[in-house]
Amino acid sequence: MTPDSPAPAFPVFAIGRFPVPDLASLPEDIRLRMTTVQEKAGFVPNVFLVLAHRPDEFRAFFAYHDALMEKEGNLTKAEREMIVVATSNANQCQYCVIAHGAILRIRAKNPLVADQVAVNYRKADISDRQKAMLDFAMKVSRSAHDVGERDFELLRGHGWSDEDAWDIAAIAAFFGLSNRMANVTGMRPNDEFYTMGR
Amino acid sequence: MTPDSPAPAFPVFAIGRFPVPDLASLPEDIRLRMTTVQEKAGFVPNVFLVLAHRPDEFRAFFAYHDALMEKEGNLTKAEREMIVVATSNANQCQYCVIAHGAILRIRAKNPLVADQVAVNYRKADISDRQKAMLDFAMKVSRSAHDVGERDFELLRGHGWSDEDAWDIAAIAAFFGLSNRMANVTGMRPNDEFYTMGR
Amino acid sequence: MTPDSPAPAFPVFAIGRFPVPDLASLPEDIRLRMTTVQEKAGFVPNVFLVLAHRPDEFRAFFAYHDALMEKEGNLTKAEREMIVVATSNANQCQYCVIAHGAILRIRAKNPLVADQVAVNYRKADISDRQKAMLDFAMKVSRSAHDVGERDFELLRGHGWSDEDAWDIAAIAAFFGLSNRMANVTGMRPNDEFYTMGR
Amino acid sequence: MTPDSPAPAFPVFAIGRFPVPDLASLPEDIRLRMTTVQEKAGFVPNVFLVLAHRPDEFRAFFAYHDALMEKEGNLTKAEREMIVVATSNANQCQYCVIAHGAILRIRAKNPLVADQVAVNYRKADISDRQKAMLDFAMKVSRSAHDVGERDFELLRGHGWSDEDAWDIAAIAAFFGLSNRMANVTGMRPNDEFYTMGR
Amino acid sequence: MTPDSPAPAFPVFAIGRFPVPDLASLPEDIRLRMTTVQEKAGFVPNVFLVLAHRPDEFRAFFAYHDALMEKEGNLTKAEREMIVVATSNANQCQYCVIAHGAILRIRAKNPLVADQVAVNYRKADISDRQKAMLDFAMKVSRSAHDVGERDFELLRGHGWSDEDAWDIAAIAAFFGLSNRMANVTGMRPNDEFYTMGR
Amino acid sequence: MTPDSPAPAFPVFAIGRFPVPDLASLPEDIRLRMTTVQEKAGFVPNVFLVLAHRPDEFRAFFAYHDALMEKEGNLTKAEREMIVVATSNANQCQYCVIAHGAILRIRAKNPLVADQVAVNYRKADISDRQKAMLDFAMKVSRSAHDVGERDFELLRGHGWSDEDAWDIAAIAAFFGLSNRMANVTGMRPNDEFYTMGR
Repeated sequence: MTPDSPAPAFPVFAIGRFPVPDLASLPEDIRLRMTTVQEKAGFVPNVFLVLAHRPDEFRAFFAYHDALMEKEGNLTKAEREMIVVATSNANQCQYCVIAHGAILRIRAKNPLVADQVAVNYRKADISDRQKAMLDFAMKVSRSAHDVGERDFELLRGHGWSDEDAWDIAAIAAFFGLSNRMANVTGMRPNDEFYTMGR
Repeated sequence: MTPDSPAPAFPVFAIGRFPVPDLASLPEDIRLRMTTVQEKAGFVPNVFLVLAHRPDEFRAFFAYHDALMEKEGNLTKAEREMIVVATSNANQCQYCVIAHGAILRIRAKNPLVADQVAVNYRKADISDRQKAMLDFAMKVSRSAHDVGERDFELLRGHGWSDEDAWDIAAIAAFFGLSNRMANVTGMRPNDEFYTMGR
Repeated sequence: MTPDSPAPAFPVFAIGRFPVPDLASLPEDIRLRMTTVQEKAGFVPNVFLVLAHRPDEFRAFFAYHDALMEKEGNLTKAEREMIVVATSNANQCQYCVIAHGAILRIRAKNPLVADQVAVNYRKADISDRQKAMLDFAMKVSRSAHDVGERDFELLRGHGWSDEDAWDIAAIAAFFGLSNRMANVTGMRPNDEFYTMGR
Repeated sequence: MTPDSPAPAFPVFAIGRFPVPDLASLPEDIRLRMTTVQEKAGFVPNVFLVLAHRPDEFRAFFAYHDALMEKEGNLTKAEREMIVVATSNANQCQYCVIAHGAILRIRAKNPLVADQVAVNYRKADISDRQKAMLDFAMKVSRSAHDVGERDFELLRGHGWSDEDAWDIAAIAAFFGLSNRMANVTGMRPNDEFYTMGR
Repeated sequence: MTPDSPAPAFPVFAIGRFPVPDLASLPEDIRLRMTTVQEKAGFVPNVFLVLAHRPDEFRAFFAYHDALMEKEGNLTKAEREMIVVATSNANQCQYCVIAHGAILRIRAKNPLVADQVAVNYRKADISDRQKAMLDFAMKVSRSAHDVGERDFELLRGHGWSDEDAWDIAAIAAFFGLSNRMANVTGMRPNDEFYTMGR
Repeated sequence: MTPDSPAPAFPVFAIGRFPVPDLASLPEDIRLRMTTVQEKAGFVPNVFLVLAHRPDEFRAFFAYHDALMEKEGNLTKAEREMIVVATSNANQCQYCVIAHGAILRIRAKNPLVADQVAVNYRKADISDRQKAMLDFAMKVSRSAHDVGERDFELLRGHGWSDEDAWDIAAIAAFFGLSNRMANVTGMRPNDEFYTMGR
């Protein structure tokens, strides 16, 4: 920064291996998204700062995120976060497990479930229906090539429709992308996430 | 379709396990994207028809795609397609290997390279620099959790910058998402792709 | 329990798939170990209750535990817990990640490090020397058959002696046993662990 | 070659990392096999040229090949090639996927099936019976140690006899050998294969 | 050794990468355990000499061993050794396969069964009930995180109680520890084991 | 057998899941091969009896075997058997580990080396050069697709030529075929092998 550059609106930590853009230099829509989340959460999650290095990818990423995580549908918001947390730990993605673990605790109003689902969802305090959802999500994450009719039948046996299957698969697939980018960019979870909802 | 429904503009094959929307029912922007690609390619690739089942996801998917595949950058368009083809075969995604194999043949003006890269890029008629690019892409696809400074150094030894590394990683990660959705939806490659560019 | 049986000293939750012995029925040495830890921690960690089903195994387990975790040595107590947490998450052991995550936070006086090490120690706020320690621990956990001179040399390059290597290996190996027993018995982490040291 | 040596009957490309013998120097039976295939196919597939470096192994290899691929039996010739193509892509063998993909297209009179079977046979335009055949072939290729009565029963449920099971297993096993030799010798597929049968 | 040091009671081979303690320097209880086994077997198995480098771990290790291998229970002594041999070969532990292979031959009064079980227990001359026991032991060894009710049911279908399941799991888990320590310490099997019981 | 059928020349055990041909019904060359080995070894190894079910495959199999195992070359006969034993245990092939373990003991005049190499060749009483040979053989067996110049260089660093590399690879590849057929046919090792050379 030159001496004349304005102070950044957000404190900028070493939150990744790529340059984090100065807020003032960002396109208006991206800055707006950040200030909105900051007002709501009290801080800007680092995923916004890291991905803002590439504005077009930022926009597509969050549009995809919202299309899956904010839409109506049979999966509760907590269930969507369970998918994120379980698949992200299998992919060893620190950012996603810690940030979405926090969101899961809040959405599920349950301080224990996120750590349980992260480590081994088969032993978590969740329903069999939710375990079937996570079985499918994990299969999509690890071996989608082998998904077939039998998997849809198993889901139907627990009351999940084919549309729900799309939702589960898309969340697992999208966060597989997110996990890879977070690991490559060295995206650091904000300290705030660790205690939210406990 | 009722007798009164207009004939579909595109012949609709059994191209996936989810309903393929009637063209007339699609939002204008999505229909426009399809007619544009149809004019250019002579047919509508099935990925457009399958993903149109979910318009918001469709928009985010192609915005992400274009942000990575149409942007300026050090990777040639053929090199980007190499990443798609190599990682998609490792993920056993029929649609992506066959469709992007066609695009790779055309972009590289080389009728042999797509099949070579799909099966074993280490033995393909490509440069050592391109093999280093694919080594990194495959690592992102399979074990992004283990990516570290050493990988960036290996890339730099072949003239790839850290920004190029982001590009490579993002393409591998995005098509990882695409591979999973194609496998879950049973997305069928159009017959036209098999012979394009041979 | 018959009406005359004394109330259990500890509330007994459904903490595993095997019977949890009534405290009064336990041998004196095992009961003493439990009351001692209860006085110190304020509760009885479930690993004591689950393993007390087999008194001889209980005694050997904790003797082994203490021989590795309470002994003098170059590894700090926090470093020993890092080994437990990293290898236990790779083994998907809910009890060990959550209980020893708590102990790690306390021993390291760091509320963030346990979650970081659990998900991906390569990205944690720990020293390169500690990462080398965990590289070795993970190799012992996953592919001890392939450990050789090169691994001891790598450790020595970070100031770890061969005796330290034994310590690291033994902790990884012992908690590999613990992880397997916790998963088979369905050992539930006590609720208290989730927030300790945050 | 000395100035006096006769011009080679076949153009000799850099088709592998080992020396390719001069045709004139080859034993009569091997030369005859090559000229026969050349008359039929119009070119000499590189597998003949690469393996001719070791005449005894050449003879045993092709005797084995013929015993499996030219014999009578319940498997059609196209089905045998499906086994080769599916298992060879899993083994990342460029030569076998590309050369036998061509043969499969011709034998099946189907320009699409080879690429489909190579990438993910579960999604290919083949019968359930053929998918069961390929499930078994893939299991033999990857984890033959785990083959048991249940696998023979599954085959019988699709009308495959135990003799057919031997055929399927032997083809998967033989091309596993072939895949490994092709990868180690760097065997290059002839350019002609890429477009045959499309 | 200085000239004055007493001759060691046992010949000391290069049996591992860590120092082997002089017998005279060992605590009485450890020396007694060694002389007892020597009287019975005619030699001191190297596991005693290697682990004596750490007396506290030695005591806990053998207490655990005895609690599992010497106790009463439904598993015969030969069956317990089958678990050791099968899981130890999967873990590539030379000491445990060779030493416990000898013990298995003796306990089963069968000179063939140890080598059969080591390489592929599914093809061994053992009962279906014993194969079910080993299926469970192998699952505990490799993927205990995935053990669930279905596994206990499979065992019950072969007459194994839940208490037996604990025994099987504990033996697999304990020898997983032993395998890792033997591989890291380079523990050499005594020559005597190779021919015992043949 | 009808009462009039001649007694079989060899006792026929349940040595596999496929029919074992009556000796009298076999083609002369195959019977001769069997009687020759019987005179030399004192018994007919079961691989001859099992594979004789398919005479053409039998002939090709043994021609290939002899081309690799009986030829001149830099690899000693014991070294060739080491390759068989190490790769066959990784493939969990009971017949090959036990039968070729016997041959290795005899060829190496060493009663210990076969069991050591089978379980973990890295810890066996063999030279570093032989370990490099087995590193390469294991890579060919498991991931031949990844073999490249670096592997040939490693071999050359231990005095192995590229021709030797072919030999090593071919033996690993051929016994990979043999392992798969033995596992699928349920080929039982003859009792005689277990003690030969001990």
